[in-house]
Amino acid sequence: MTAYENLTAHIAEYHDLLCILNTLKWDMRTMMPAAGAASRGRQLATLTKMAKSIFVSDETARLLDAAETEGAGVNPDSYQARALRQTREAYEIQRRIPADLVGRMAALGAESEAVWTQAREDSDFASFKPYLKQMLALNIELAEAIGYEDHPFDALVGQFEPGMTAARLERLFAELKAGILPLLERIVAVDEPLPVDLWEAEYDIATQKALCQELTAMIGFDFERGRLDIAPHPFEISFTRDDVRITTRYDANYLPMSLFAALHEAGHGIYEQNIAPELTRTALSADLVGQYAVGGASSGAHEFSSRLWENQIGRSREFWGRHFGRLQAAFPQQMSAVDAEFFYRAVNRVRPSLIRVEADEVTYNLHIMLRTEIEMALLDGAVSVADLPEIWNAKMQEYLGLTPPDDRRGVLQDVHWSFGGFGNFPTYTIGNIMAAQVLAAAHAQKPDLAAKLAEGDYQTLLEWLRENIYRHSRAYSTDELLTRVSGQGLNTAPLLDYLEEKYADLYGLN
Amino acid sequence: MTAYENLTAHIAEYHDLLCILNTLKWDMRTMMPAAGAASRGRQLATLTKMAKSIFVSDETARLLDAAETEGAGVNPDSYQARALRQTREAYEIQRRIPADLVGRMAALGAESEAVWTQAREDSDFASFKPYLKQMLALNIELAEAIGYEDHPFDALVGQFEPGMTAARLERLFAELKAGILPLLERIVAVDEPLPVDLWEAEYDIATQKALCQELTAMIGFDFERGRLDIAPHPFEISFTRDDVRITTRYDANYLPMSLFAALHEAGHGIYEQNIAPELTRTALSADLVGQYAVGGASSGAHEFSSRLWENQIGRSREFWGRHFGRLQAAFPQQMSAVDAEFFYRAVNRVRPSLIRVEADEVTYNLHIMLRTEIEMALLDGAVSVADLPEIWNAKMQEYLGLTPPDDRRGVLQDVHWSFGGFGNFPTYTIGNIMAAQVLAAAHAQKPDLAAKLAEGDYQTLLEWLRENIYRHSRAYSTDELLTRVSGQGLNTAPLLDYLEEKYADLYGLN
Repeated sequence: MTAYENLTAHIAEYHDLLCILNTLKWDMRTMMPAAGAASRGRQLATLTKMAKSIFVSDETARLLDAAETEGAGVNPDSYQARALRQTREAYEIQRRIPADLVGRMAALGAESEAVWTQAREDSDFASFKPYLKQMLALNIELAEAIGYEDHPFDALVGQFEPGMTAARLERLFAELKAGILPLLERIVAVDEPLPVDLWEAEYDIATQKALCQELTAMIGFDFERGRLDIAPHPFEISFTRDDVRITTRYDANYLPMSLFAALHEAGHGIYEQNIAPELTRTALSADLVGQYAVGGASSGAHEFSSRLWENQIGRSREFWGRHFGRLQAAFPQQMSAVDAEFFYRAVNRVRPSLIRVEADEVTYNLHIMLRTEIEMALLDGAVSVADLPEIWNAKMQEYLGLTPPDDRRGVLQDVHWSFGGFGNFPTYTIGNIMAAQVLAAAHAQKPDLAAKLAEGDYQTLLEWLRENIYRHSRAYSTDELLTRVSGQGLNTAPLLDYLEEKYADLYGLN
Repeated sequence: MTAYENLTAHIAEYHDLLCILNTLKWDMRTMMPAAGAASRGRQLATLTKMAKSIFVSDETARLLDAAETEGAGVNPDSYQARALRQTREAYEIQRRIPADLVGRMAALGAESEAVWTQAREDSDFASFKPYLKQMLALNIELAEAIGYEDHPFDALVGQFEPGMTAARLERLFAELKAGILPLLERIVAVDEPLPVDLWEAEYDIATQKALCQELTAMIGFDFERGRLDIAPHPFEISFTRDDVRITTRYDANYLPMSLFAALHEAGHGIYEQNIAPELTRTALSADLVGQYAVGGASSGAHEFSSRLWENQIGRSREFWGRHFGRLQAAFPQQMSAVDAEFFYRAVNRVRPSLIRVEADEVTYNLHIMLRTEIEMALLDGAVSVADLPEIWNAKMQEYLGLTPPDDRRGVLQDVHWSFGGFGNFPTYTIGNIMAAQVLAAAHAQKPDLAAKLAEGDYQTLLEWLRENIYRHSRAYSTDELLTRVSGQGLNTAPLLDYLEEKYADLYGLN
């Protein structure tokens, strides 16, 4: 065996352990009886520790050294060279992160999440404040351990979006705000409630479930290699491309909840299912820093696929023009008074709101920017934890024209800060930017794509995405993938064009 | 920390890995999409190898040596002393089994099971014969590696029932045959078909499912710490006492299939759920030789609990006298023409049959004896693989008065020999013997037990079993447990008395 093959065999076993961790987490969130939590926590802790000790080991160092020496002449653009570089980089970062810091973050996170849960219920920021202060301190410690050039946020966001920086995000955000805020103002000026409230009716859960199954299969989620289950917080997770699990949640009244969460998670799942088979069990189908078996260029790139299928396809006029009949057959009573165009409008109404997870396509990114800007300011000391509610409310007023009546519906609404992970929020907006950019490129390269989509042919788009994006998994960065299909890296223009075109039409703005 | 605590912490992490393996297996048999099999196989192989290397390690040897030295004065009857002895014994056996033998058995088993599947379908023993020959040779190699005094079967059965031997089984079997064969003859002489065939009707699967859930909860399976799912081959598996998974299968016509499989697996699950909490993650709640997280004194002892709840409780006149109304409410149409006594008779009809898994309480053990006697004869060379169909058919005629029309319904019917494990069949009969013996002891010690059971109070029996059997997990052997409750080790008399009493009454034999 070559040195590279030896390294690959070692990483493959490490990858098996990461997939097993995913299986344990999937079961924990979908199947496990409540009383199993303590046992499962210990099992996860034991296997996580073991996986880390296998990756950050002298054996990895030895195999990596040998493979690098052997591979000195290999084409630097090849999968092999890219896998080697990413393995080396992850190995060095992992070695710089002290094991006890990870342990302290996990321990604080468990306690802090419980405190946050109560604090949110009581709308009592003061009780959560000391935990957030400690969590901020640990995030700063983590950023210092990972290392950065300009801003501590760079180290943290880099865990989810390699190469991204605070400075670049600020430029992207400025462009987005310049486009979105005036559009939102024009929409708000003319928006009116729809004459029928579809979500007063009841929608049988079993029928919803069958619909979710049907729609996700229709866009290309392969049920031979996957499942759809129920989870209170929907997610996607994979145990290699041949076993991809997605989840959704059901509300007896609010039908869009299950449908769009299912399409969103199917979008994630489709990415995983279309990774090149030869990248299975390799460094290019795992986040080696985050110790998480996941393919895709980055968290943001993964979000591109979920947003594309959920919003740009799933919330399009063409999609419901094609499938509203099916919906009406499933819910004849509830849908009797409306047509496809009405349903399209009902699932695309734009309204500034307090809660991120309920936001529409136009306002969603404003929620993300607000949070990301606050994280950056906390990390560089521009604001203190004590000032958070005030800063939050000021930004809500600035971006959305709303002031939360309490912290429960304001600064306390998201779980993220309680258990740790700063740097993750911008991946949602990166996903939105990329989705618009990629779909625009696909249309440019395949002039018949619009006609295919209108006919309900999603396979053509999926195949193009597989060829140009999905199959490469983590081999190329977000910017590299985008440059290959559109000639430039992350670019906000297609997203702004998409929003302007869709919502100017929907609201008759021109 | 004491040396014993250090060993315990090490074993606890090993135990976590065994529980994780169980989780992967449960998922594989209940949830996994078909295409996930290859990935799952690699994940199981990686983790199994890793678990073995952790148990059969210099670290285990060092920790074990230190704990034995420290524990020299500890009460030899204590859990600590018993855990130490069992860990030492398992460690020595594991070291004696060559890793490559395990690998060869697994590799041959996978191939051989596929060949057997086809051979059974074609009723073609000749094509399976060479694989069975190789599997026999590997079993002999395994028996030699483990070591034995009298018979190679002793080494193999000892994996499932520590201390059991071929000689002792032959004595137990002789006693059983002396009781069962004449009883069967008397039954066959008077048996007639029942006037109504209940299994011509259809039974809605969702209603069956609700019934299975209700009945298993009623006998004491705790759904706060467990689940009931569907599997083509029902099984029970646990990931500690706080997360126990049981399964059953459904036939739209043959209602007893789901009901009694559910009660059987719930009986296994109840054992696991009632192990003393302090034995969680210890050597006393795992089969350290088989590398399987399972509590209970042995495979036979585990089978005692499943047989007790399935047969002695679940197929009793008192049980259906109490719950037939519930069954009739669930299936009013199908049960309209019959009463509790009829249903009791319908699920207890005795008839010699060709297929083990369809056998009743009276004939079941004859199927087991036939297989066990054949395994012994193969291992000591008294018969050769080529003679198997002939031997099988001769014994079927001798014990059950039937001759299989083909090998599919004869020697090819069970999967067990194809994938390896000789020595496992007698655990079913050991379970039956023990169930009768334990229940007789419980009645003797609790004179009001019969009245409680007739009232539908199963908690009294469960508590007695927890106190006397379940909580000790593997700390005591089958014989030790039986001696503590009944004054003697495995004894066939209570089983023979139970069968005589129940079936003489049912068939009006006296």
